[in-house]
Amino acid sequence: ASQPHPFANFATTGKKIVCVGKNYRAHIAELAVIGLCEDEKPKVPVVFLKPTTSYSLNGQPLVFPTGIGEIQHELELGVVINTTCKNISEKDAMSVVAGYVLGIDVTARDVQLEAKRSGMPWTVSKGYDDFCPVSDFVAASDVTDPQSLELWLKINGADRQSGSTANMIWSVPQLIAYVSTIMTLEPGDLILTGTPEGVGPLVPGDTVSAGITGHTTMKFEIVAETK
Amino acid sequence: ASQPHPFANFATTGKKIVCVGKNYRAHIAELAVIGLCEDEKPKVPVVFLKPTTSYSLNGQPLVFPTGIGEIQHELELGVVINTTCKNISEKDAMSVVAGYVLGIDVTARDVQLEAKRSGMPWTVSKGYDDFCPVSDFVAASDVTDPQSLELWLKINGADRQSGSTANMIWSVPQLIAYVSTIMTLEPGDLILTGTPEGVGPLVPGDTVSAGITGHTTMKFEIVAETK
Ligand SMILES: [Mg+2]
Ligand SMILES: [Mg+2]
Ligand SMILES: [Mg+2]
Repeated sequence: ASQPHPFANFATTGKKIVCVGKNYRAHIAELAVIGLCEDEKPKVPVVFLKPTTSYSLNGQPLVFPTGIGEIQHELELGVVINTTCKNISEKDAMSVVAGYVLGIDVTARDVQLEAKRSGMPWTVSKGYDDFCPVSDFVAASDVTDPQSLELWLKINGADRQSGSTANMIWSVPQLIAYVSTIMTLEPGDLILTGTPEGVGPLVPGDTVSAGITGHTTMKFEIVAETK
Repeated sequence: ASQPHPFANFATTGKKIVCVGKNYRAHIAELAVIGLCEDEKPKVPVVFLKPTTSYSLNGQPLVFPTGIGEIQHELELGVVINTTCKNISEKDAMSVVAGYVLGIDVTARDVQLEAKRSGMPWTVSKGYDDFCPVSDFVAASDVTDPQSLELWLKINGADRQSGSTANMIWSVPQLIAYVSTIMTLEPGDLILTGTPEGVGPLVPGDTVSAGITGHTTMKFEIVAETK
C-alpha cells in the first residue's frame, strides 16, 4: 500500500469547517417553499461555521440529539485546504486545494427555522456532535473537474438526494477566494460548498449511504443519543 | 521562571471559540435600543462560533477590514477548557476549567444587524481575522471566584467599557454545562461568556487597553487592512 495522503487526516488536524449556504438554485427554491428564505440568489455566498467536534468518519454511528424537531441531511462537496492563505485570488485558488470529501451538513431544521425567524445564530442547528459525517479523502490529483461531480445519497437503500456540482452558483475557486477575504484558511480546513435540492429527514434507525460517483462512498447508521 | 502553564498556549492548540450572546441584562437593553433584539432574557444562552484564525495575542496589531461599517468591541471573560467533555453537569463544570482570559468579541455591528434582519448566520460579522484579541492566560488556581471579576476597557486612555462578571445571566458553570449538551468541548477550547453594556466603535489608529482587575492587562493597536 502507498503512503497515506498528507491531508487524509484533515478531520483530526483541521481547525475549521466553513460551510456555504444557498449555493444551488433548486435548493433555494425548496427552502423558499417552507418559508426559510426568499427565492433569490444571495449577493455574496452565505457563510457559517460548524465545529470540528461535529465530524464523524465514514462508518461511525451518528448519535443524534432527540427532542429538537426534524434533523435533515444536506449532501455537499467538501474542499480540503492545503496551506495557510488569506485574500487568495480566484485564479490562484485551485492551488490551495489538497483534495475533496463528501460531507453531510446535518441540520436541525426546526431549530434553524426558529433561529432565522428570530435573527439568532445558526450555530446550534448546525453544530451538534456528529452533524458533519464525511467520506474518506479524495486527492485533488484524482479529480479532473470539481464542477462536474455527481453526488448521491440513499436512506435505507432508497434514493433521496442527488445533484451535480455543475449547478453550483459559486464555483469552488470562487468560494475559496471569497472565504479567504474574511478569514485566513489553514491546512486541513474544510469548506462545505452547499447542498443541491432534495434535503430531507434523518431518523434513528436509518442507514445513510452516499457517494461521489467514481470517487468514494460512505455509510452511516443513525442512533439516538441517550444521556 | 516557572514552567509555562499547560494551557497557556490555548490559542495555538485549541480548535474552537464558543461565544455566548446576551448574557448581561444591561447589554441586552442597549442592543434593544438600536433594534438589534427584544429587551428580554433569552430562554437559553445564545451560542455562536468564531474561528480560531480570529485570535490575536496580547500586543499584536489588530488588522481590521475596511468598508464594512462600524466595528465594535465586546469585552468578555473567556474560559479555557482543560479536557474533553460532553453533557457535563453544572455541578462538575468547574473541574473542566483550565483558566481564564480576557477577550474582545470584536463585532462588525452593521454586518451583524443586516444578518439578523435577514435571518442569516452571524459568522462573517464575528469571524474576521483579528476579531478575537485575547490576554495572557490566567490559571484557574489564581481566580477565587469567576463571578466576581471586574473587567475594564479603555480606548486611547479613556474609559469605554467596564462590568462585573457578577452580572452574568448564566454563570460560568451553567454556560459550560449548556454548551456541552450541544457539542463536545476539548482541551484548549475557549468559551467567551458575553459582554456587559458599553459596547462601542473601534477604528484604525485606536489603542485599546483592557484588563481583569488584579489579574491581567492587555493592549492592542488597531490598523486598517491594506489588500
Ligand atoms: Mg462521533
Ligand atoms: Mg448546507
Ligand atoms: Mg459577544
